[in-house]
Amino acid sequence: MAQKPNKLKARLPRGFVDRSAEDIRATDEMLANIRTVFERYGFDPVETPAFEYTDCLGKFLPDTDRPNAGVFSVQDDDEQWMSLRYDLTAPLARHVSENINEIQMPYRTYRAGWVFRNEKPGPGRYRQFMQFDADTVGAPGVQADAEMCMMMADTMEALGIPRGDYVIRVNNRKVLDGLMEAVGLGGDENSQTRLTVLRALDKLDKFDWDEIAKLLGEGRKDESGDFTSGANLSSTQIDVIKGYVFASGYGTDSGIEHFQKPADVEGYVEGDEQESSPGLYYSNLATISGLEAIVGDTASGRAALNELNVLFKVTSLSGYGSKRIRFDPSVVRGLEYYTGPVYEAELLFDVTNEKGEVVQFGSVGGGGRYDGLVKRFTGRDVPATGFSIGVSRLMTALKNLGKLSASEVVAPVLVTVMDGDVAALGRYQKMVQDLRNAGIRAEMYQGNWKKFGNQLKYADRRGCPVAIIQGSDERQAGEIQVKDLIEGKRLSEEITDNITWRESRPAQVTVKETDLIETIRGILDGQAEDRRRASEG
Amino acid sequence: MAQKPNKLKARLPRGFVDRSAEDIRATDEMLANIRTVFERYGFDPVETPAFEYTDCLGKFLPDTDRPNAGVFSVQDDDEQWMSLRYDLTAPLARHVSENINEIQMPYRTYRAGWVFRNEKPGPGRYRQFMQFDADTVGAPGVQADAEMCMMMADTMEALGIPRGDYVIRVNNRKVLDGLMEAVGLGGDENSQTRLTVLRALDKLDKFDWDEIAKLLGEGRKDESGDFTSGANLSSTQIDVIKGYVFASGYGTDSGIEHFQKPADVEGYVEGDEQESSPGLYYSNLATISGLEAIVGDTASGRAALNELNVLFKVTSLSGYGSKRIRFDPSVVRGLEYYTGPVYEAELLFDVTNEKGEVVQFGSVGGGGRYDGLVKRFTGRDVPATGFSIGVSRLMTALKNLGKLSASEVVAPVLVTVMDGDVAALGRYQKMVQDLRNAGIRAEMYQGNWKKFGNQLKYADRRGCPVAIIQGSDERQAGEIQVKDLIEGKRLSEEITDNITWRESRPAQVTVKETDLIETIRGILDGQAEDRRRASEG
Repeated sequence: MAQKPNKLKARLPRGFVDRSAEDIRATDEMLANIRTVFERYGFDPVETPAFEYTDCLGKFLPDTDRPNAGVFSVQDDDEQWMSLRYDLTAPLARHVSENINEIQMPYRTYRAGWVFRNEKPGPGRYRQFMQFDADTVGAPGVQADAEMCMMMADTMEALGIPRGDYVIRVNNRKVLDGLMEAVGLGGDENSQTRLTVLRALDKLDKFDWDEIAKLLGEGRKDESGDFTSGANLSSTQIDVIKGYVFASGYGTDSGIEHFQKPADVEGYVEGDEQESSPGLYYSNLATISGLEAIVGDTASGRAALNELNVLFKVTSLSGYGSKRIRFDPSVVRGLEYYTGPVYEAELLFDVTNEKGEVVQFGSVGGGGRYDGLVKRFTGRDVPATGFSIGVSRLMTALKNLGKLSASEVVAPVLVTVMDGDVAALGRYQKMVQDLRNAGIRAEMYQGNWKKFGNQLKYADRRGCPVAIIQGSDERQAGEIQVKDLIEGKRLSEEITDNITWRESRPAQVTVKETDLIETIRGILDGQAEDRRRASEG
Repeated sequence: MAQKPNKLKARLPRGFVDRSAEDIRATDEMLANIRTVFERYGFDPVETPAFEYTDCLGKFLPDTDRPNAGVFSVQDDDEQWMSLRYDLTAPLARHVSENINEIQMPYRTYRAGWVFRNEKPGPGRYRQFMQFDADTVGAPGVQADAEMCMMMADTMEALGIPRGDYVIRVNNRKVLDGLMEAVGLGGDENSQTRLTVLRALDKLDKFDWDEIAKLLGEGRKDESGDFTSGANLSSTQIDVIKGYVFASGYGTDSGIEHFQKPADVEGYVEGDEQESSPGLYYSNLATISGLEAIVGDTASGRAALNELNVLFKVTSLSGYGSKRIRFDPSVVRGLEYYTGPVYEAELLFDVTNEKGEVVQFGSVGGGGRYDGLVKRFTGRDVPATGFSIGVSRLMTALKNLGKLSASEVVAPVLVTVMDGDVAALGRYQKMVQDLRNAGIRAEMYQGNWKKFGNQLKYADRRGCPVAIIQGSDERQAGEIQVKDLIEGKRLSEEITDNITWRESRPAQVTVKETDLIETIRGILDGQAEDRRRASEG
């Protein structure tokens, strides 16, 4: 290929990133932990491809300001539009519908995969990210939603997030429907206003009530002067919504304590005391009871409260109290396809955000019931529920918590190149293959061998544990020099750490070439033992 | 969501497929095996996203008849075109170029990922498929190509493909350049003709020489009457190419025997006899020696033969003889960015293709040296070599070989639902959670519980090992019924297999609810023991 006069600029489109070895290994470990939980719950893997026909995906993305944006779409040879999936739920509904006669319901599956959003990227906001989903399709009862909430909780703990540092927040779309009806916002003609109200409620974890009230009323101007249009509700309507929000305990300082209520709710269930102080036990059921006055007169609200009642009783009876799975009025879930219970996994510990503010980490995943998605295709009622974990976001959280174990992968042993003739190269390579066949990670130096200093610099930067050197003299004697690079560094830096009590190993030895494997294995074992001691010390 | 009057049709765009649990688990196991080999060779994971700017990817796809087709492209907000990657090599070159000041060369990395081709799909030919690549960037010597060939061989064996059932076929683009020069097809003005010639050579594994000769001459009509234009070479030119092909042993029946030559080549190297019959040992070097007469007078040909000489000596000295790594004149590699050695992993065992013909399985991956790809961005010489494994194709091959172990995943224990009141649901769910906490895969029936027959049908189709039943009588007595579904089936079918010698377990027992875990564990252990015995018998 001829060299071009104008060099190309190597760059990635905005919102896309490369992944480092460290991130890949950490993600793989995380995915394996999540998979173990999902498998234990009886779910099996099923995956769909990146593309779907655009009409099959549907337009369920939250951002309705740009109805045709949000997804990446291309037109196929036959003029049909296809799009990259923006989540894993809509494709699953297509998959179930396409194979509905073969699929045994309830259909319990999980999948990890990349999804794509054609949106404006920002800090921590990418246009390609990984989701890890689990769904039960063909499950009419709210006990299936209860199971999802428990599985999210177990997933958080399997990843090392301590109980108390996370909570599964639960609401029900029908509660919100009932609330809308109660303030006179039912009917198709109010769909846009309802969306504006839901978006305002979605901000309860970010803003004080007064700011939310502005979003429900005439609108809100933020610090930068940007104006967000409001829902233009009357003050009477806003008061009803305020009642809903405050009945749920919003507005007090702690995320937990404000749910403490007297233990006066019917339907005692065991299994909560084990993790909560007395009285806290009834909080979910008490809150739901308190909401009767606000939404209980509407059909949707009535149904929602019944469902939430069953959900929280099942989770409590299974030993998951309100400290882990909790009603929260601000859970809305942006995607339009949800029809019943909705739930979110939220991390409660503090982190410092990009503006330097200390905030709670927030949501790392969520989901809900989507009874209508399969019906779009089949015309049949196929009730379903499921959730999605944001893998990259969760990994950031685990990094913050120090829960990602430092990589245990040892760099390869380096066989250096002293002579570049074919016989020597063959001999070096043979050593490498022998090491590999003995299960030892190894490589021959593949750069320009003539600068020997570069070879040792490479070994150092790479973190190679051992270097092997054989010049022509050693070759004739059938010997090799073996450098313990870790020990060498320790000796040269005269580190006095908690392992100096042992006799130092020699940093360099000359041994018979036939003792290659044994020698290297001995050094690697010694280094591993030192690491073990250091991590214990 | 309102039900639409016209139902949507659930279907996937052509060339895209869903993946079953079985395929996903088999692929994951395969990827883990490949990863183990790559790690042992000293490679680390690095990944790039699905999208790249179109100009960064470059137009290196084989199908130049449709220069702007072949990839999926979308225009970004800022009018720049971006495309889904069609392989993992071009994105790696972008990644290296973008981070060239931070990267320690030689840079040895691997990655598995989906790639996309906007091509006409066919049997076994998808528009989204997975590749698993390894690359060494910053490696000028042909010893790096030799390492790649050995790593491909080791990968095949790590996947259970026996020695002799695969071969790594090697050629050098410069041999082909030399050949083109030798027949007067050098220079930019002949680039299109050269491509036609290379495509014809690429078909040597499919067609007899006479058919290849037609493609080199005026063109060829296939059985269906479709005409492929030829390169319009003269008969003299075609004769030279025939000499090249036949000097390499093409035209005899076997893929191996025709390489047997007298052991008369200079440069004895040890390590080959261990796997070949006497005389076969020198075949690669003998063949290369034979090509001197044809391409040795051209600069490219001369350089190529020297490189191949080093490559095969290094592999031989490392113990990889011509049975595993072999010169092959028909290896061309379609992608235009290759500049030196090119190599392919080919499976030699027979399979029946979609037309009912018995054919060799063929290529499952390949690669080569691409010294110009990074230079496009940086202007600096950054020599590199790497290969790509076609994951889906390799999995099909392993299925054919019976090398994919049947899934060892046991279906979940099913806790059936006899009563749907909330207290009962809670109690069933608690049993499930207890089983899960004990590490036992379990689930509560999540379909419509009122039809109990459906629950047992579900357990049967799903392959559940055990069902747990608790009606109100048992609940009051604090008991559960436990059905061993495997044993039950065996007894009901009166199977007289090689494990009937043992006393049969009871197919159903009633035990105290407090003995739940112990009972289930006992049954599962018994079933596992039976499976073990059956697989040994």
